Order: sequence, then structure tokens, then C-alpha cells
Amino acid sequence: MKKAVVLLSGGLDSATTAAIARSEGYKLYAISFDYGQRHCREITSARAVAKHLEAADHLIVDFDLRRIGGSALTSDIGVPMDRLTEEMGSDIPITYVPARNTIFLSFGLGYAETIGAFDIFIGVSQVDYSGYPDCRREFLEAFEKTANLATRAGVEAKGTFRVHAPLLDLSKSQTISLGTELGLDYSLTWSCYLGGDKACGRCDSCKLRLAGFAEAGETDPLEYA
Amino acid sequence: MKKAVVLLSGGLDSATTAAIARSEGYKLYAISFDYGQRHCREITSARAVAKHLEAADHLIVDFDLRRIGGSALTSDIGVPMDRLTEEMGSDIPITYVPARNTIFLSFGLGYAETIGAFDIFIGVSQVDYSGYPDCRREFLEAFEKTANLATRAGVEAKGTFRVHAPLLDLSKSQTISLGTELGLDYSLTWSCYLGGDKACGRCDSCKLRLAGFAEAGETDPLEYA
Repeated sequence: MKKAVVLLSGGLDSATTAAIARSEGYKLYAISFDYGQRHCREITSARAVAKHLEAADHLIVDFDLRRIGGSALTSDIGVPMDRLTEEMGSDIPITYVPARNTIFLSFGLGYAETIGAFDIFIGVSQVDYSGYPDCRREFLEAFEKTANLATRAGVEAKGTFRVHAPLLDLSKSQTISLGTELGLDYSLTWSCYLGGDKACGRCDSCKLRLAGFAEAGETDPLEYA
Repeated sequence: MKKAVVLLSGGLDSATTAAIARSEGYKLYAISFDYGQRHCREITSARAVAKHLEAADHLIVDFDLRRIGGSALTSDIGVPMDRLTEEMGSDIPITYVPARNTIFLSFGLGYAETIGAFDIFIGVSQVDYSGYPDCRREFLEAFEKTANLATRAGVEAKGTFRVHAPLLDLSKSQTISLGTELGLDYSLTWSCYLGGDKACGRCDSCKLRLAGFAEAGETDPLEYA
């Protein structure tokens, strides 16, 4: 079985991505990041998803991006609430975290090289919430090229690192439909920016999730406040 | 004064790189990594160098690459000792850490974006110890391209991130001569893989340092065991 490293945030997109990798026959090596985000509920969810998808291993890497800041997710700036989904999308939101996916993919690359994997899965999408620069195809392609130049495995041509982003051109509702088909249990995932026992239903992330479930004609199994 | 982020390991090369950035008129923002390397002596040295060069700030980022392993520097594999400098160089050494410079540069990028810097300095060299894939020009160029695609600042064309590697084509002795001209106090730097009060003088890193000082006709101010 080929190994794949999957970046797993505990959210809906990365969980679906992991389910896709699994359905393609990869043995999953999950990696999650406890980076000083607003709450650690998503790490709990990542653990549950990794278990649900029978990941061979799950590495949690710990560092503090609050030391760097620059984002509503890593500082005390409030996250956007009560916006319509139509209001989101074209601008880069204040939840953008400087260099986050570059950092995450770099750790994923180190992990992949060490375990002998060449396939790295990331659950980014250019559709919906498309303002994040590090969720675009051109970024992923540039990172992939960098990865192959950065590493022993790349240089010695033991294989070619590939960054897979199977959701890149899918809307949230298409993602949810696909995950549902694959039997993914979305009750294990977490999207809300605020943490807590119940999702707030009001932050951008909850709004997009709810709109996605509605559009997919599915019911979100999460409880909302 | 333009700001520059400087990756500072506490070693001779990164200290010289910082001194060069300073001599070019940059205000220094140093970033160091406590990543589970064999000893923390180099962090102490990085602090001393940052102070000596009057860095405006010094960020120390903490994470554990031992969880990933794959290197003599982040596992219990022994480091190479008692090799002649002629024996080093063409192969990738076991002190290679998977994706290390990619990870370091990624954090440097996040830091740079947050403080409004576009210049990132790294003390890698293709000469001497040239086996590390992530010390080559093609890697740095690929990372630079990735950086500009990854970030808000890159996308909004507020500026262009540049990765500066002023030592890239310098030998160790040329580096030492340059640093000495710039008034850098090499007694503050640390190169030995083993840590401790005195440098061992026997590991690859000590050997290269000592050969560099000898070739430059300078005296290494460090004490050796």
C-alpha cells in the first residue's frame, strides 16, 4: 500500500480529503498542527477523524503562531460573524494566517520524506472562500516544485513529491456530497472558529458549512448553539 | 530603515549573514528555531549574536522535529566524527534534516509578512559541505517563487519577497574573512554538533570551521576540548 501524508485540521475539507486519499488506496499518515489557533477543539476532531479513517499514524506538531500573529486566528482580533456567504469570497479575510499552508506543507514534506511517502494531501479549495492565496493551484504547484528541490528524496530521484488537492475545484456542497458517498462521518468534524461544545452557526466558517450542507441536500450532524 | 528577517542558528554562517544584512542597512529581525536539535547551546549563541548585531527583535520558534526524526541531528543516530574535510561534501550527510530549511524559511516568511518585511536572509552555502539539497540556489529560487504566491503581500503586490543567501558561493574561509572585516565577534557563535562548554573539534562541523579559520589566516576564538 502506498503511503500518503494527509494534512488534517479536523475540519470538513481535510476530513473529506483524507477519505478520498483512503478511497484511492493510500495508507494514511495524518499530520495536524496545534499552532495557537483559537481553540483546540479541532485537534480533538482531527484525532477522531484519523481514527475513523484508520490512519496508520497521526502526528501532532506543536508550535505557536501567536508569537508571529497577523491573523484573527492567531491573535485577539475578532473573527467575522453574521456575514452572508455572498459577502465573503473575493477579499483575503482577516482569518488569513501568514504563510500557514507553506508551514503546514513544509512539515508534511519532512514527515513524508522520513516515512518514505511521496504523496501529500491537502484539503484546500479555490471555490467558495477563495480569498486565501495559499489555497490556489499556482501556490501548490510552486510548493511541489520546491519540495522536490528541497529534499534528499527529490534530489536522488527516489520519487517525485506530489501535492494532491482533490477539493481544489469543488464547492463546499460538492465536497460534502463526495464525503457522504465515501461514508465519512461528518459529526466528527469541526468547522466553527469559536470552539466550545456547540458550533456557533454565525462565524464565516459555520455559515459556509451550513450553506454547503443545505445545497448538498444533506443534514449537518453537528449541533449548533 | 528596511526590515530584514534573518534566520539565525547561532552558527558561524548565519551570524555572518546577519552581519552582512546589517552592513547593507537593514534593520534585523532575527528568527531562531528550537526544533529538538542535539543541544540548545546554539540558541544561546543565537541570542548573543542577535544582541551583538543590535537586532530589533529576536523570535525563537519552538517545535519538535524529533517527532519526525530522519536525521542524526533529530534522533539518536551519532553524528560523523573524525572525518577529514576531503571526505565530506559530495554525499548528502546523515545530519541532513528532512525539509528543515523549507520549514525554517516558511516561518521566516510568516514573520516577514507580519512585520512588513520582504527580505529574508539565510546563511546557506553551496561550497564546502555542499551535500544539503536545501542549500542550493535552485531550491532558494523555488522557495522565493512559492513565497510570493503563498502570501497576501505577494498577491496584493505590496512588494516582492526575496530570499538572500549572500554566502551561497563563498567558501568557509571567505565567509570568515568577510565576517571579520565586518567586525563580527565569532566568539559568540557556535558550530559544534555536540554542545557542551567547549567545542569538540572532531565533528564535521568543527572540522569545517577550523579548516575555514586556518585557510582564512584567522584564529578561531572558540575554546576546543
